[in-house]
Amino acid sequence: MTRMTILTEAELRRIVPLDREAVACVEDAFRALATKAVAMPPILRLDIPEHRGEVDVKTAYVPGLDGFAIKISPGFFDNPKIGLPSTNGMMVLLSSRTGLVQALLLDNGYLTDVRTAAAGAVAAKHLSREDASVAAIFGAGMQAKLQLEALALVRPIREARLWARDAAKAEATAGTLAEALGFPVKAASDPKAAVAGADIIVTTTPSEKPILEADWLQPGQHVTAMGSDAEHKNEVDPQVIARGTYVADSLKQTRRLGELHHAIAAGLVAPDAEFAELGQVIAGLKVGRTRADEITIADLTGTGIQDTAIATLAFARAAAAKAGTTFES
Amino acid sequence: MTRMTILTEAELRRIVPLDREAVACVEDAFRALATKAVAMPPILRLDIPEHRGEVDVKTAYVPGLDGFAIKISPGFFDNPKIGLPSTNGMMVLLSSRTGLVQALLLDNGYLTDVRTAAAGAVAAKHLSREDASVAAIFGAGMQAKLQLEALALVRPIREARLWARDAAKAEATAGTLAEALGFPVKAASDPKAAVAGADIIVTTTPSEKPILEADWLQPGQHVTAMGSDAEHKNEVDPQVIARGTYVADSLKQTRRLGELHHAIAAGLVAPDAEFAELGQVIAGLKVGRTRADEITIADLTGTGIQDTAIATLAFARAAAAKAGTTFES
Repeated sequence: MTRMTILTEAELRRIVPLDREAVACVEDAFRALATKAVAMPPILRLDIPEHRGEVDVKTAYVPGLDGFAIKISPGFFDNPKIGLPSTNGMMVLLSSRTGLVQALLLDNGYLTDVRTAAAGAVAAKHLSREDASVAAIFGAGMQAKLQLEALALVRPIREARLWARDAAKAEATAGTLAEALGFPVKAASDPKAAVAGADIIVTTTPSEKPILEADWLQPGQHVTAMGSDAEHKNEVDPQVIARGTYVADSLKQTRRLGELHHAIAAGLVAPDAEFAELGQVIAGLKVGRTRADEITIADLTGTGIQDTAIATLAFARAAAAKAGTTFES
Repeated sequence: MTRMTILTEAELRRIVPLDREAVACVEDAFRALATKAVAMPPILRLDIPEHRGEVDVKTAYVPGLDGFAIKISPGFFDNPKIGLPSTNGMMVLLSSRTGLVQALLLDNGYLTDVRTAAAGAVAAKHLSREDASVAAIFGAGMQAKLQLEALALVRPIREARLWARDAAKAEATAGTLAEALGFPVKAASDPKAAVAGADIIVTTTPSEKPILEADWLQPGQHVTAMGSDAEHKNEVDPQVIARGTYVADSLKQTRRLGELHHAIAAGLVAPDAEFAELGQVIAGLKVGRTRADEITIADLTGTGIQDTAIATLAFARAAAAKAGTTFES
């Protein structure tokens, strides 16, 4: 018999908010990726074109952690037509020692939202200027909200601009965020205006052609591009990568799926060009930002180590709070 | 909120025994693999060498089926030292239309046992002589038992021999099987003796060097090798593949993981040599056995379509039997 803990989305939302500890656990995971014998196999991907569906399965083992997560992330893009969210999913936490299932995290994608936003905070903490106080966000969905909340955990943000293709949605999201965060968040009429004078720019859209143009960027800005997690997605003008200091979450992934992939395809960057990874910058093995007037860019495609990190945190918090349902099979 | 059915191992053992319907659903899945636009991505594999652990994740989408399974199969080979089984795992059944989780099949590997044995029956049904009545089994574990039970569902088996490295275990397993199946099952003193006069030979061991020698084989015999699901495993003399009529469950997999891989490595078979797949034989697209005196060999590495097939059967049976626990998250 295997005894496991089942945690629902409601329980996980309660015990794993986006907070400094969530950011720290994702930061630790990136550091481990650069310094330990982490095993992170390529993403398993299944496509179901007749239902506009796709599923990614990610996993990673971090030496020293008691468990490792296997995350199932479906995206079915006709779901909104029938009143369902496009993205969903769950994580399974297994023991690193025995392979037994420790927990089923029925988060419907919530933990992915948290660990993705946490990675944005980690990137800003290690690449943006310490005094960065003005943020520009592209997009008005869940990640637009969470990325700004995450930035506010690591930098003294006092003003934000939000641009999205849907101006009404941008207004609404900006209003919600201003209320939640206690500083002005304004909807911008165009992306260029949002970028002007910002210290940190975070792109969170599913765009398939660049929104952020290289010529808009000013010395000292930091860009986190987190919308591209598949070959066809592209938010940032490939010139940005050629001109700025580029850092990948996982080079193996960004060469194939990230903004880097488009810079390579455009012939601006050699396919085997070496760049720093976020974990190497955290660990001090490679340099990130070296000057205040440097332009930095973080390319985040989402990694299995983030899932293992957040699932481990969720399991520990559930044990401490005696949350969840025990199930035997 | 997602509403899902949770099924325990005990429930699954009750509603999904190894029976003709289980064999038929796996046969249908192989037919679909040859005739429909099945999506079956490469296996995701994670290794945790410090705990002698490995995890395989398999999936496949079969057009026409309402759901698809994602199967998590851990193997942790130090587990027996602490009284736990080496292999474990579970399946998640997702809707093909929405990606929502439909069921959690907490089978601890039981459904894998059933679908693996069912594939052995399918191979024997399509490749062995119709009058095959004497079976030889290598190994004395769970698959040794289930493969013989599966053969008895599709061929008029009236006698079996069982050989295993551990003679006492072979005796015990043979005794259990004789009682369960109602025909003589004898432990053989050596593998060669087990093979002599057998119509069907099934190898179910985790061996890393060949046990079944090519020179032992007699005209008309059929071999199913199902122990090799990883690069280092090898049960059958590569000469068998060069001499017999070879059929793969999935050529893409057997070229990398199966007995075929060793024949290629030995230079006996070209890396790109074309062979029939089991589904193509079932669908009549390629020939399997054409003469009674032909030697046939099926190389089974285990495929995601089998998991999707058995999980779909389990979910339908659970609905019909009102089995399982409904859980919302």
